[in-house]
Amino acid sequence: MSSGTDIPSDDENTRIGWTEAAADPAYRDAVLELLGALAYGELSAFERLAEDARDAPDLTAKAEIAAHAAAEFGHFAVLRGRLAELDADVTEAMRPFAAPLDEFHRRTAPSSWLESLVKAFVGDAIATDFYREIARRLDDDTRGLVLATLGDTGHAEFAADRICAAIEEDPRQAGRLALWGRRLMGEALSQAQRVVADHDALAAVLAGGAGTAEGLDLAELGRLFARITEAHARRMQRLGLQP
Amino acid sequence: MSSGTDIPSDDENTRIGWTEAAADPAYRDAVLELLGALAYGELSAFERLAEDARDAPDLTAKAEIAAHAAAEFGHFAVLRGRLAELDADVTEAMRPFAAPLDEFHRRTAPSSWLESLVKAFVGDAIATDFYREIARRLDDDTRGLVLATLGDTGHAEFAADRICAAIEEDPRQAGRLALWGRRLMGEALSQAQRVVADHDALAAVLAGGAGTAEGLDLAELGRLFARITEAHARRMQRLGLQP
Repeated sequence: MSSGTDIPSDDENTRIGWTEAAADPAYRDAVLELLGALAYGELSAFERLAEDARDAPDLTAKAEIAAHAAAEFGHFAVLRGRLAELDADVTEAMRPFAAPLDEFHRRTAPSSWLESLVKAFVGDAIATDFYREIARRLDDDTRGLVLATLGDTGHAEFAADRICAAIEEDPRQAGRLALWGRRLMGEALSQAQRVVADHDALAAVLAGGAGTAEGLDLAELGRLFARITEAHARRMQRLGLQP
Repeated sequence: MSSGTDIPSDDENTRIGWTEAAADPAYRDAVLELLGALAYGELSAFERLAEDARDAPDLTAKAEIAAHAAAEFGHFAVLRGRLAELDADVTEAMRPFAAPLDEFHRRTAPSSWLESLVKAFVGDAIATDFYREIARRLDDDTRGLVLATLGDTGHAEFAADRICAAIEEDPRQAGRLALWGRRLMGEALSQAQRVVADHDALAAVLAGGAGTAEGLDLAELGRLFARITEAHARRMQRLGLQP
């Protein structure tokens, strides 16, 4: 994952550490699921960026994108290490999330270099925002780890610069890319809903958080999606695209 | 690059450091060319392994191969760093080597997962052997750097294990893979000759070495190719393949 975000990541909800929180087996299961989902996301981001590096129009871009891919792999390695500490196997933890994420990528296969840049910029940011929202509900230790793996690899700025330059050169691109951005948002929400629907433990954390009875009511869920949608709109505008 | 090797890499030819050697502008140019060739080789190895990770038959293999790809990128970053120290741009240094290496990969595109493993095991080892031979003729500083970037990423052992298991399961694979190994060797030698023919400065280092009049005579050149060919044969035998 990469890309800046406008979702708050401060520690307003700082409450308890992993040991205390994991005394609840349901919470422990949810965190293993979350780490598995994130791990597959990073591995998948690595693969996609490696493909973008292969298709890059020049050697400078190729080397830069390859660096971002390697950084995503570094995030994956952190998650795999944490899963090993928790006696969980990364392959098993990732397995349930491979199909929905692969499906997202199949449904949003870029048809051009520019579309792949927008996908990297906008798509990863949506995922990052979503995970940041979940992170706020986690124990302190897991939250720190998750936020570290969501750190920007520098790809967002690289992609935004290239996209803005391309639109400046050929303003007719803007309409098509705006549609593309909306499609990415729609597919991302659709797959996120599928993941939450299929993973009760994960959904419970999203709804409740670590070791608290503090529930996520429907109004709060609405605000969550509103924040993600607004952050997406601001990013599209930053690219000069109609959200 | 990866893979173990039987080519001697000891410091029998240790003579001088970079500062002294680089007083000769032709030697300096040759090293910049060499670092450029290696850098593109690493970037290319990164890309190819990332593709292998994408096509891996299971999530465990995917994660492991992605790790090897990221390690190759680490080698690339070392070479880019050294080029920057020498006030050279990695993109410019790599440019002349992109075509022959891309051509090698086009001519040896694996048609199966097993062929891609053999290519990774055998092909990278040939390149590594070739660069180790060159390294023996370099100044101490450059040699140390080059040998470090030729370090095994763990991919050779991974690939060899999987290949041996596949042949054990279906011994009929052995004949086809043996042919594939010979084809890889032929294409590698052909592209290596092209690179040497097109790069006089590099050829001069291969022939002469850093800051010495010690020439590489034809008999020594013959022994060099014999060593590379023999090392290749031993690797094929290790896989249970007719060299």
